Amino acid sequence: MPVSTTSRPGPFEWPVRVYYEDTDAGGVVYYASYLRFFERARTEWLRSFGVTQQTLAEEHAVLFVVSKASVDYIAPARLDDELLVSAKPARFGRASVQFEQHALRQGTRVASAKIAIVCVSLDGMRPVAIPPEVLAKMKNSQ
Amino acid sequence: MPVSTTSRPGPFEWPVRVYYEDTDAGGVVYYASYLRFFERARTEWLRSFGVTQQTLAEEHAVLFVVSKASVDYIAPARLDDELLVSAKPARFGRASVQFEQHALRQGTRVASAKIAIVCVSLDGMRPVAIPPEVLAKMKNSQ
Amino acid sequence: MPVSTTSRPGPFEWPVRVYYEDTDAGGVVYYASYLRFFERARTEWLRSFGVTQQTLAEEHAVLFVVSKASVDYIAPARLDDELLVSAKPARFGRASVQFEQHALRQGTRVASAKIAIVCVSLDGMRPVAIPPEVLAKMKNSQ
Amino acid sequence: MPVSTTSRPGPFEWPVRVYYEDTDAGGVVYYASYLRFFERARTEWLRSFGVTQQTLAEEHAVLFVVSKASVDYIAPARLDDELLVSAKPARFGRASVQFEQHALRQGTRVASAKIAIVCVSLDGMRPVAIPPEVLAKMKNSQ
Repeated sequence: MPVSTTSRPGPFEWPVRVYYEDTDAGGVVYYASYLRFFERARTEWLRSFGVTQQTLAEEHAVLFVVSKASVDYIAPARLDDELLVSAKPARFGRASVQFEQHALRQGTRVASAKIAIVCVSLDGMRPVAIPPEVLAKMKNSQ
Repeated sequence: MPVSTTSRPGPFEWPVRVYYEDTDAGGVVYYASYLRFFERARTEWLRSFGVTQQTLAEEHAVLFVVSKASVDYIAPARLDDELLVSAKPARFGRASVQFEQHALRQGTRVASAKIAIVCVSLDGMRPVAIPPEVLAKMKNSQ
Repeated sequence: MPVSTTSRPGPFEWPVRVYYEDTDAGGVVYYASYLRFFERARTEWLRSFGVTQQTLAEEHAVLFVVSKASVDYIAPARLDDELLVSAKPARFGRASVQFEQHALRQGTRVASAKIAIVCVSLDGMRPVAIPPEVLAKMKNSQ
Repeated sequence: MPVSTTSRPGPFEWPVRVYYEDTDAGGVVYYASYLRFFERARTEWLRSFGVTQQTLAEEHAVLFVVSKASVDYIAPARLDDELLVSAKPARFGRASVQFEQHALRQGTRVASAKIAIVCVSLDGMRPVAIPPEVLAKMKNSQ
């Protein structure tokens, strides 16, 4: 990862090991597997400041769903590779967050993505404002 | 498939095409993928006589869950293979059904399984008797 | 399938049934599952005019890999839904094809995607021109 | 990890967090997902003493494939659960190893499995003796 020369830390990163389950007969990581990896990083980023699916559902009666995902596949990853997957919120809306995410192998990008998530009500799954407490934690953890 | 010499038809079979999503870097179908294939065949067997997850939940407040799965991997299946996956109830309990299932490629077994499913209540997920109407349909469709 | 009133047929469509394997604890189809559905439709489109992974590898020493995937999630799909997934080549490059794809439930879009695939050599996985015979078949089947 | 009071350590254990990708619309971990979890634990057990797919392929021209998997589903696991998945070789054959594996949540079993793997040649995928050096490491790491 690019090392910041200021006190500002880099984006949140989560290690992902590539297992057989993630690969396909082409010998490389299957293209849908990256969406699983990117979600793990977003989930762990939320968990890093105490926001889980359970707290969202029980305390706020909401959940986050993905509304848009755009992935660039840059280089193939392979069995046993250890990737670092980043999750950085790039833009906040009232009910949505857009993430920039990268999967890196030894500092080199193998895939990059823009993923938009929307906050929806548990009943009805309609877009609702992100709970202020959750939004504040997200903005603090950029 | 074993051809019956009587009027009795063979077991229910469902075609499954092997895509990249089902394979791994070993070049063959990933071992967990067969559980997905076997479930598709059980689901389509139930659907063939009008029983779906929705009818089970809405009319009977139950769902079926797997309690035991035992798979023998006999020969590797590969990308683009077309498999026939069978689903045959072999034993009925009060709240459970045990299936014998096979995945065949051109008449040859590539995997065989015994899968036990249990009927549980939607609330609480405790074992309950299979609804008589559903059990009757299952027994008629062996 | 939508029946065209002119001589021009609609895009290639492939039926996809939603099973438990495709869903998540949110009660809806998991966001990565759509990439599996879209690939099945592209694979079956190719197969519809005789192009399979095997012919690509054995006769031409190439394979297709995905270089870019962009998905809009429009409405949730659920267990037991039957989707129609389209695959329509929208732009041809020398070594690449860009697809427009939709997943429809009873005529209504639940997800739409733009997927770019690139033709690469089996050894080395470098971009190479799409074999003319394959390209001609693709263009005939738009 | 359970701390043994004798000098003999417990079985190898690997933590697995449950994400949306692992669950289904029943609200619990999908039954095939456990096979993925069990394989991660076996893979990490092998890696813990320096045996990877790459060393097996490049130094010994072999790979391990699963020949039999039998899983008991004891209790449902759910989103955000952290499981500990064990991998303990229970019996060694000339070309095979049988594992006993458990997935535990806070010390309680949610699933148990017996998984048999077979050592096969890279070319031809026929059973061959486990390389003595690999077998010795496995037996040392029981």
